[in-house]
Amino acid sequence: MARNTQVQADHNAPPITRVLAEYVSSHPSRGWSDAVDREAHRTFLNWLGCAVGAARHEAAEAALAAVAVLQPAPQATVIGRKEKVDAASAALVNGITSHTFDFDDTHLKTIIHPAGPVASAVLALAELKGATGRQLIDALVLGIDVACRMGNVIYPDHYDRGWHITGTTGMLGAAAGCARLLGLDADRTQMALGIAASQPVGLREQFGTMTKPFHPGAAARAGMMSALLAQHGFTASPRALEAPRGFVQVVSTKAAWHEATDELGERFEISFNSYKPFACGIVIHPSIDACVQLRDQGVTADQVERIELKVHPLVLELTGKKEPADGLQGKFSVYHGCAAGLIFGKASEDEYSDEIVNRPDLVALRRKVIATVDERLDEASADVTALLADGRKVHVFVEHAIGSLQRPMSDEDLERKFRGMADPILGAGRAAELIQACWRLSDVEDLAALATLMRPD
Amino acid sequence: MARNTQVQADHNAPPITRVLAEYVSSHPSRGWSDAVDREAHRTFLNWLGCAVGAARHEAAEAALAAVAVLQPAPQATVIGRKEKVDAASAALVNGITSHTFDFDDTHLKTIIHPAGPVASAVLALAELKGATGRQLIDALVLGIDVACRMGNVIYPDHYDRGWHITGTTGMLGAAAGCARLLGLDADRTQMALGIAASQPVGLREQFGTMTKPFHPGAAARAGMMSALLAQHGFTASPRALEAPRGFVQVVSTKAAWHEATDELGERFEISFNSYKPFACGIVIHPSIDACVQLRDQGVTADQVERIELKVHPLVLELTGKKEPADGLQGKFSVYHGCAAGLIFGKASEDEYSDEIVNRPDLVALRRKVIATVDERLDEASADVTALLADGRKVHVFVEHAIGSLQRPMSDEDLERKFRGMADPILGAGRAAELIQACWRLSDVEDLAALATLMRPD
Repeated sequence: MARNTQVQADHNAPPITRVLAEYVSSHPSRGWSDAVDREAHRTFLNWLGCAVGAARHEAAEAALAAVAVLQPAPQATVIGRKEKVDAASAALVNGITSHTFDFDDTHLKTIIHPAGPVASAVLALAELKGATGRQLIDALVLGIDVACRMGNVIYPDHYDRGWHITGTTGMLGAAAGCARLLGLDADRTQMALGIAASQPVGLREQFGTMTKPFHPGAAARAGMMSALLAQHGFTASPRALEAPRGFVQVVSTKAAWHEATDELGERFEISFNSYKPFACGIVIHPSIDACVQLRDQGVTADQVERIELKVHPLVLELTGKKEPADGLQGKFSVYHGCAAGLIFGKASEDEYSDEIVNRPDLVALRRKVIATVDERLDEASADVTALLADGRKVHVFVEHAIGSLQRPMSDEDLERKFRGMADPILGAGRAAELIQACWRLSDVEDLAALATLMRPD
Repeated sequence: MARNTQVQADHNAPPITRVLAEYVSSHPSRGWSDAVDREAHRTFLNWLGCAVGAARHEAAEAALAAVAVLQPAPQATVIGRKEKVDAASAALVNGITSHTFDFDDTHLKTIIHPAGPVASAVLALAELKGATGRQLIDALVLGIDVACRMGNVIYPDHYDRGWHITGTTGMLGAAAGCARLLGLDADRTQMALGIAASQPVGLREQFGTMTKPFHPGAAARAGMMSALLAQHGFTASPRALEAPRGFVQVVSTKAAWHEATDELGERFEISFNSYKPFACGIVIHPSIDACVQLRDQGVTADQVERIELKVHPLVLELTGKKEPADGLQGKFSVYHGCAAGLIFGKASEDEYSDEIVNRPDLVALRRKVIATVDERLDEASADVTALLADGRKVHVFVEHAIGSLQRPMSDEDLERKFRGMADPILGAGRAAELIQACWRLSDVEDLAALATLMRPD
């Protein structure tokens, strides 16, 4: 009776649930380098800007309207809005808004956007519980570590089969972060991870719809609820992650168990987090960067006869939409990304408006982009040749795009990106104040006061 | 670039999301036979009793405590309790409690327990919205149809790989039922199904813990939220169920598309629902029934040297626990089930208390049960031979257990089962009144009044 047609069940997997539970509950506060801690602040700031920027998006309106039906208690801040809602709903909505622009962060080993599920959960819970900034940062680091480590265990098989890995590991990260924030012991933290393991959220089929950003939001809420349930004695399998019918073996044919525990407490996955310079999927960034560099070399749209783009196969698989109809679809079009890079020299949220995506010069230029797969290219790279009307060819090869670990955005880059999104919602003065508060986050004693800054007057 | 190691992607699947959306939004009220409608009442009554019965279980306490942290608005009834909570939380808690005893209903083709996710969602939403009993029943039938049809599409492969199918199709049923109750049009119902498709809940690894009943609860909440989001304009893939990276192809290697749509509006899956006479997984029922029949033939525990039990392979796979430590584990032990059947002649929740599972005579008898797999036996059957101290052998073969479609429980059986659970919580008078109200449910104009009956004084 072996009807499991998917995987060869592994009955000898190590007890990683337990090991992670002990880790999350026992690792000392700030038990990592200054660089790691700094990275946590950068992560938080970057994520917060994304949430602020999308606060008036129609997806935010729709989600808030649904939440309002349930008449929640005012407990936690909806970032960039005057409303306060219950903490679980705040986690949901902030998780949605922070991923709406596809402009947040990326754990490059796994394509996980870890702040969406983890920060959304721990901020809302921290506000409710009156936690300190220190506790918040601790929870963020540990939560992201769990989510990304579990991603390392199952990536890429899990992603390849169609799961949106941000929401299908994010609930584990959110549960870990919230368990930490609640001060749960190892037993209850283990239960929190177990409850969360039953709730992976997200299909790649949803890319291009509001349900894509819903994934980190729902994962945030699920993780928080898992921690609250565990706090009050709710039980789950203690081997929910590693058992033959547990999370990993059900959702993946790859199970690199060692990724969960190698160098635990020594290597922090948040170290491998990166921030997006362009408001779209990370796989397009090298292509856009190359076109920005074409522009820097003096190439203009009206000179271009053809743009020959060579990319890694994943680029066309994920973002091969040739004729995007609106801004959201534009994010899944490497063709539009290239056109925006060449015409504007950037690809922020403004360049993904419905109007810009349909503007005739953009449409004309994107149709001149001939994209082909080159199996020899790395995912991080792109090779672009512009063929001009005068017969010239201009070639750019990007090995690592701006925003990558090799060419990271500076703090100033991050502040600029933040202000671009926050100024229109909060006003420049408050946005600047919030930036400073974020840099000092681990010293903040009163998160409620900080949260006030996240709301418009 | 074919990294999908799980399935051969099918790009030609029929548009079942659309077809189901149109069906749910357009099928006329009560567009089925009297027998189907009657079955809906039976389903509701049976489910409600389960929820009432478990209202003071520690899983209920834990879940309520977690909900209370979020300070929800009082909108909807927590069955068998005085508390009212927000509707989504009521769906969650009632979904948990109604499945806590493993005593609810079973769609025998798929082992889905459909009322848990669907009824929990539609009752809470109906109370909030002031719907009529008629609307509630309509939503229940359609919601169960969607959940079970999707189950038919993917069962057994999906279940075999480790998913708890009740929670991984239940969110679709809950979304469908709630969309119906909200009066969403086909477009928005399609979005509701799409949002729900990203939220399958449940791993079989959780069996034996509180997270098993959490699965239908979380599916109920997810489905309700999906419908509310869709009502307010939230979008999802319109092909979220059938696309290559949509629900079915991501969670199953089997995709019997025709099961979703064959005889739609003609054959209703609620017709294949059954109700449990024993408070444990359906696969043990033939074995327990056989032991009850041994008792009816005069066999007593002190006579027994050995019980030879032959069962379908799934029985030992799911319920092969030889030494259950408590009541919950007892539900996953065919050995305890047989002992209870022979000693008590029944296996209701009382026979699954921690005390009974550890009582010496039960422990002694269950250790005399020798269970072996017989590949020739159907899942519905069991073959038991008792070898007695005096050398006699008593043989019982059960082709279909009590509670099966072939030997269904009568209305009186269901009332008796209901009273067994409801009387201790609500009192016999109110329980009797509630039974009558359930039988008349489709005539009820005011669900709030009905809900009052579900709470203790």
